[in-house]
Amino acid sequence: MSQAYNVTQKLIKDHLLKGEMEPGKEIGIRIDQTLTQDATGTLVMLELEAMGLRRVKTEISVQYVDHNLLQTDFKNADDHLFLQSAAQKFGLWFSRPGNGVSHPVHMERFGKPGKTLVGSDSHTPASGSLGMLALGAGGLDVAFAMAGEPLYFKMPKVLGVKLSGKLPDWVSAKDVVLEMLRRYDVKGCRGMVIEYYGPGLDNLQAMDRHVIANMGTELGATTTVFPADEMIRKFLKAQGREEDFKEILPDESAEYDLHDEIVLDDLVPLIALPSSPGNVVPVSEVAGREVGQVVLGSSANPGLRDFWIVGAIMEGRTAHTDLSFDINPTSRQLIQNLAASGQFQNLIASGGRFHQSGCMGCIGMGQAPATSTISLRTMPRNFPGRSGTLDDQVYLCSPETLAAAALTGKITDPRDLEKELGIKYPKYQPVEQELINTQLLIAPPESGENIELVKGPNIKTLPQFEPLQQNYRVPVLLKMPDNVSTDEILRAGAVVLPYRSNIPAISKWAFAVIDESFHDRALEAREEFGGHIVIAGENYAQGSSREHAAIAPKFLGQVAVVAKSYARLGWQNLINFGVLPLEFVNPDDYERIEEGDVVKLKGLLESLNKEEPVVLINETKEENYEVSFSQLSERQKEIIRMGGIINYFKEKKVSTKGEVERPLR
Amino acid sequence: MSQAYNVTQKLIKDHLLKGEMEPGKEIGIRIDQTLTQDATGTLVMLELEAMGLRRVKTEISVQYVDHNLLQTDFKNADDHLFLQSAAQKFGLWFSRPGNGVSHPVHMERFGKPGKTLVGSDSHTPASGSLGMLALGAGGLDVAFAMAGEPLYFKMPKVLGVKLSGKLPDWVSAKDVVLEMLRRYDVKGCRGMVIEYYGPGLDNLQAMDRHVIANMGTELGATTTVFPADEMIRKFLKAQGREEDFKEILPDESAEYDLHDEIVLDDLVPLIALPSSPGNVVPVSEVAGREVGQVVLGSSANPGLRDFWIVGAIMEGRTAHTDLSFDINPTSRQLIQNLAASGQFQNLIASGGRFHQSGCMGCIGMGQAPATSTISLRTMPRNFPGRSGTLDDQVYLCSPETLAAAALTGKITDPRDLEKELGIKYPKYQPVEQELINTQLLIAPPESGENIELVKGPNIKTLPQFEPLQQNYRVPVLLKMPDNVSTDEILRAGAVVLPYRSNIPAISKWAFAVIDESFHDRALEAREEFGGHIVIAGENYAQGSSREHAAIAPKFLGQVAVVAKSYARLGWQNLINFGVLPLEFVNPDDYERIEEGDVVKLKGLLESLNKEEPVVLINETKEENYEVSFSQLSERQKEIIRMGGIINYFKEKKVSTKGEVERPLR
Repeated sequence: MSQAYNVTQKLIKDHLLKGEMEPGKEIGIRIDQTLTQDATGTLVMLELEAMGLRRVKTEISVQYVDHNLLQTDFKNADDHLFLQSAAQKFGLWFSRPGNGVSHPVHMERFGKPGKTLVGSDSHTPASGSLGMLALGAGGLDVAFAMAGEPLYFKMPKVLGVKLSGKLPDWVSAKDVVLEMLRRYDVKGCRGMVIEYYGPGLDNLQAMDRHVIANMGTELGATTTVFPADEMIRKFLKAQGREEDFKEILPDESAEYDLHDEIVLDDLVPLIALPSSPGNVVPVSEVAGREVGQVVLGSSANPGLRDFWIVGAIMEGRTAHTDLSFDINPTSRQLIQNLAASGQFQNLIASGGRFHQSGCMGCIGMGQAPATSTISLRTMPRNFPGRSGTLDDQVYLCSPETLAAAALTGKITDPRDLEKELGIKYPKYQPVEQELINTQLLIAPPESGENIELVKGPNIKTLPQFEPLQQNYRVPVLLKMPDNVSTDEILRAGAVVLPYRSNIPAISKWAFAVIDESFHDRALEAREEFGGHIVIAGENYAQGSSREHAAIAPKFLGQVAVVAKSYARLGWQNLINFGVLPLEFVNPDDYERIEEGDVVKLKGLLESLNKEEPVVLINETKEENYEVSFSQLSERQKEIIRMGGIINYFKEKKVSTKGEVERPLR
Repeated sequence: MSQAYNVTQKLIKDHLLKGEMEPGKEIGIRIDQTLTQDATGTLVMLELEAMGLRRVKTEISVQYVDHNLLQTDFKNADDHLFLQSAAQKFGLWFSRPGNGVSHPVHMERFGKPGKTLVGSDSHTPASGSLGMLALGAGGLDVAFAMAGEPLYFKMPKVLGVKLSGKLPDWVSAKDVVLEMLRRYDVKGCRGMVIEYYGPGLDNLQAMDRHVIANMGTELGATTTVFPADEMIRKFLKAQGREEDFKEILPDESAEYDLHDEIVLDDLVPLIALPSSPGNVVPVSEVAGREVGQVVLGSSANPGLRDFWIVGAIMEGRTAHTDLSFDINPTSRQLIQNLAASGQFQNLIASGGRFHQSGCMGCIGMGQAPATSTISLRTMPRNFPGRSGTLDDQVYLCSPETLAAAALTGKITDPRDLEKELGIKYPKYQPVEQELINTQLLIAPPESGENIELVKGPNIKTLPQFEPLQQNYRVPVLLKMPDNVSTDEILRAGAVVLPYRSNIPAISKWAFAVIDESFHDRALEAREEFGGHIVIAGENYAQGSSREHAAIAPKFLGQVAVVAKSYARLGWQNLINFGVLPLEFVNPDDYERIEEGDVVKLKGLLESLNKEEPVVLINETKEENYEVSFSQLSERQKEIIRMGGIINYFKEKKVSTKGEVERPLR
């Protein structure tokens, strides 16, 4: 690597604890800040409790409540109180229900140029807009970062995207990232950090950059990075914390591993069709389709500008009577500033249905569209059924395109508002000083020693797991095909989500999508044999990073999965919770073993040490198969030996500097 | 009756079609306006469809959407579209989701002094604040009113409540009705209309009167009536429709059947303890208890003043960090006026969690409190579990008392804000002209002939039922004790409510609280015997007026209920849906008949005509019991003979004038 660095390289170099900055090689970096939200955070807090952590070791950790806001019974409200007590106990800031969506609030109140951030939410990269290295990760990774451990990942390639020019009227930041999605689709940037640079940046405010960084996640990127330039100084000043600014620019002769360029002037209003964020076309191509709902808001268009522009377009006009005009404010602060700007009043007068601030419809927490109707949203994702309506038709677009549909009742190129309705494009002037109060943000107390965790009846301490045994004799409880996803292993949805802080309860849905009897059979097998194994094909546990897909089967006695191959995150989660991720040495053996067979695994501890294949003895069939541990690091072997990463942490806490510290309890 | 009339008598006299105005005697009155909301309205619209109604015959009928707003899947959103299409087809105004709670919106936009209103919602009496006779009723009563039929009920006694003096600072209209509840509890005004009069009225704005009339329902009153005086003229003027004003005052020598008096100056802040609105004590008696949530809003405190006063108290202050400060705006119009007044901004700045407009937490649609925490609400009801949290602790109070708790985190007498915190009581000045737009109100089209009902997959046309047969041989499927409520016959709640427009689907929960196997056994009996009967003790079908507790059993083949006695509304609903409401002539026979017995009913048509007891032949036990039809009117006999009131309507439409018209189709 040359001595000239791009922003991404600077950020990594400044935080590098382990490994070399060569693309593809594993590195470990120091984490300055963490972000957790309620849907994943309750498990993280239970993990911190199980790890025996006394106090987070990061500079700043913040627990947000933005997902599970509807409170149709006591469970979500109880989770909020639990999270508040856990934040106090472990030393996190707590952002109360109603304070807003984690990503924009974090950017406004906590983000700092030059810092690293890891969050248990895939849109954490949004803070890359500030010149931070901001990464999404699984809950345990975030818990470990809070405990002062490095975050491990493969050194990404850096895709430099040069921006030049200026966005035309009726085109905004959302169209920039939709253009990226049009070019790269949803997997095109895997293993990359996208770094934007060039003169076009002078025309993109900090919150515009947030829009682009947020949806970098949809491109499959590790994260997105922007420089911290004068625009960021202005933003931090408007947020009342100019002192947090630090300039971080790419060195003049900085190089990128990959190259692309966007001329902002050439962009047109774009829209992602159902049901993938990568399914992007110009709005004009699908103009005229009838729209039943528009939803403004979410972390993908959270800024004052994004609401202001819609208010300004709607001023003195009314939304079409055949659609629901849903407004999903980002945060308490956004509402306050929107009201001060006068545009809140225009949105209400035009017929807007104004909801509480939070993620809401973006994660299917209300606002589900009616059957066979089109919903236009400024949100980041339109995966099938994510809205809450199974056969939904969700389109993703900019606030301008949303406003055009709100007025006409049809998908409409917003430029036609000017051409055909004579509406002039409103010019947004960024506010020099936003109204700020931190009423819903609670600082951590000096000490959490005497704080009791507030656990409602649905919040259960994590179960403890035993170390790996030498030998097992257990039944095969399930045989699954290729590509089984975490949604099949443990589904999400309004019924199951409220149990995410209750492992015994949520385990009732383990594999229920595949076989409703699984839970009961697993308990019987745990009673009779002390556990079970399952068989799977290729790419086991693909999909989301949810840890419940490992911990719930573990709770039910899962000793091992034997698969042809694994998805990376699912494999990692099995290890973290001490389930053996075994692979068939001869994939054809998959055909020979069946549900109901009783198998023996012998001499596991030695095999693990020696990295030797294990003989899986099929007692029922009177056959043997070779199965292997694949590519386990020494650390991962130890985690498995100890029965999971929480036991590992408790018994052998390794500090960020590599020395062994005394156990925390 | 003398020639001097009170307001109640004037309103009834002007609309009397049947009967005499003697307390206790049945009367039939002409209905000018109807109100339906979404939770009951989908069934009403399906009934109108089944009746073959072409167009409502009322002066104004309005379909509101305010209950089922959360949209966690397609069902609620589909219902909204269905209701919109039905409103167009049948000639109703449609108040779209987001427009607000039916009662205040109706009062602001449609209510007129001197008119009658019937609504399928128990808080319909709120419009009595305008000098209307406004009654809550079951869905079919409202459907019949729309079809131009009289509304029948027993002529109530009129309780005249003389108001004098002026409310002290920190005491408001909610405390007036809480004082009534302290005096009369929740059943003390059954069979009465409460009519307020006297000089104290000059100090109660129209919306203050709404607060009092709304919660008259909690007193068990038939309705509450206020005169239409200058205060009402001012209100209608502020709503831009002074022309709708008509003075209606009690005659000078008007008399009341019953008498009471309230000296407003003597009132203190009151609060209803869990879990009954009648459980009222002075706030000072329970001061100091910790509060986890406050919820401002609902039809019981819907006015601009009620939000304004909380905003003014909170101005420059912040809500206590240990409670959730939930704000539940009444309507789009309220939000707009609140923002114009500047108090919206104060509510947000103080940490308010601002929700969409509608009933929301008042009917457990979100905002459920956490386990073992106190929730203070300005709402009308605190029945156990209504909030969504089974073991909830909901207190009902005024906006002033709510603000005091929001500031201190504890139940606090609001007068202590002045004494101890030096906060002066803010003086509200009514707005002379409110901001009004009707963006979310859709007028009915000239003709609904060509409008198709929009039925999502969960909306099913009402099943058709056969006329009564002469003989049945059917099994006894269930034997129930005394006091079985409609909540046991067909429960409410977030899981079941979305099926209220789908009788086949909702019938799966019929009697499920008592016996989960009921639905399947009923289908088997329908197949094998053509139906079934059930046995009950005293006071069968008490509780809410929900019609599903009759139509769902009917759908499953219920021929008759044989009970010791009935609750009035439940009895009426059985008749309306053509289920025989039989009574044991000898109540001891209840002990002899058992679940599983097969019984015969013979010669029903003759017995019905002659009002003779029927012999219930217990084939299994080889015993006979006498059972009777009790107190059926000729009209009710005909309804039963025809298999329900919808068949009756279709075959023999009787106009409001008593002539027989041609069937509508």
